[in-house]
This record gives sequence, structure tokens and C-alpha cells, in this order.
Amino acid sequence: MNPSSKTPTSIGHHWLIEIYGIQTSHLEKKADVQKALNGAVKAAKATKVSENFHQFDPFGVSGVIVIEESHFTIHTWPEYGYAAIDFFTCGVSIDCQKAVDYLKEVFQAKEVEVQYFKRGNLAKAKSYFIEK
Amino acid sequence: MNPSSKTPTSIGHHWLIEIYGIQTSHLEKKADVQKALNGAVKAAKATKVSENFHQFDPFGVSGVIVIEESHFTIHTWPEYGYAAIDFFTCGVSIDCQKAVDYLKEVFQAKEVEVQYFKRGNLAKAKSYFIEK
Repeated sequence: MNPSSKTPTSIGHHWLIEIYGIQTSHLEKKADVQKALNGAVKAAKATKVSENFHQFDPFGVSGVIVIEESHFTIHTWPEYGYAAIDFFTCGVSIDCQKAVDYLKEVFQAKEVEVQYFKRGNLAKAKSYFIEK
Repeated sequence: MNPSSKTPTSIGHHWLIEIYGIQTSHLEKKADVQKALNGAVKAAKATKVSENFHQFDPFGVSGVIVIEESHFTIHTWPEYGYAAIDFFTCGVSIDCQKAVDYLKEVFQAKEVEVQYFKRGNLAKAKSYFIEK
């Protein structure tokens, strides 16, 4: 699932991940969700820079981990047994498939959907490039 | 550009935004990038919960603003005059088009590409729903 091209055509890589069929109790508490997303960062061998998690009332947790290679985010809807997760990376050294597998396991999820998108067309960016 | 359906079929809404042709000087300093993304949150009438910005050496800034309605993120590549921005929201009260227009203006950008994705199929989430 990681981009395999040796000649990059995009600046970033973005995985949009939908996880369904999660027991409510896994998604309710900030500490549990924070632990899960930190585990995903470790599984991907990404390098954490900072993190920020927020408990919503009455439901759900939002969390962001800024990594050297961009970001991991999570939003949980315990009332639907659903979590929306994003991995945004630059470079090809991050193993996002391992992070997806880790989250599926830790959440004991019924279904995981992953969509991959290239972010930033490198040739286009260079064509517009404006020095300061 | 905001979802107009009164009967929601998705749990979240996600805008992936590529901004090209930005003068390097707009993208280099944490303070400038932080001010721009906070302006976008205000333009969208979103409610900020917390924020976290990081200056990379030698190039670029990563920033995240957690909002009541999910998150806004930005990553800048001053060496390419490019910024990757995400708006993830739930609910339909956030005006993401205004936030896009604001960023295009503040960055004096040459080109903006926006892709919209629904996040989380509500019917599927409900079909799997597992009480604790």
C-alpha cells in the first residue's frame, strides 16, 4: 500500500481510513483512543513531534499526532461504533499498512475501508514556484 | 460546496485542498502559517478547541487546529510554493468554501484544487453498531 515509485510525482501521501463495527467502549475515553493512535504511529515507524487529544461531551474523542512526516488524526463516534482516521505522510519510509492492521486489531473492528490519495502534484508545484 | 442534503448519509465531511504558486515567504514561518489557518477557521465559522504548530528545520510548517466539528490541518513546502490543507467537519454549519477563499487570498495563490469526500457511511455504521 505504500507508494513504491522511486521517482516521486507527488509531494505527500494521504490515507483516509474508515473503521466500522467497533465496540462503543473502545471509542469513548480519551486515554484509550490516545493509546490506540500512538500505537499506530509506532506501528508505522513514524516519528512523533507532538500530540493533542480532546474528549467531547457527551460523545467522542478527537486526536491529532503531528509527526516529522506530517500527521495522524482520529475522530471517534462511539454512538455509531465508527472511527475516521487519517494518515498524511511525506516520504515513503512510513508503513501505513502496518498502522491500519494495528488499529483493526486493537479496535477489534468488523470492517476497515482505506482510500489512498496523492497530495500535491510535484511537477505542477515546480511550474508555479516563486522565490521570495 | 457544503453538503446540502437535509438527510445525512455520511458522518463526516472532508475537503482535501492543494494550494500552488504561493510565495515562499508566506510558508516559511510558523507564526504566519498559524495566523493563516486560524483565519480559515474563523472564516468557516468553526469553533477552535486547541492548536498545535511545528516549525521544521530547514523547511516548512505543520499545523493542526482541533475544532468542535473535527479538524483543520496544514503542511507547507516553501521550497515548492505549495501547501496541503485539510478541513474535516461534521455537521453542515461550517462554511468551508469561505475558508478556501480566505486562504487563496491570504497566500496570494496561483491555483487551488479542492476535492470533497464523504467520511463514514451512516447506514453501514448503524448496521454494525455494537453496544458496550
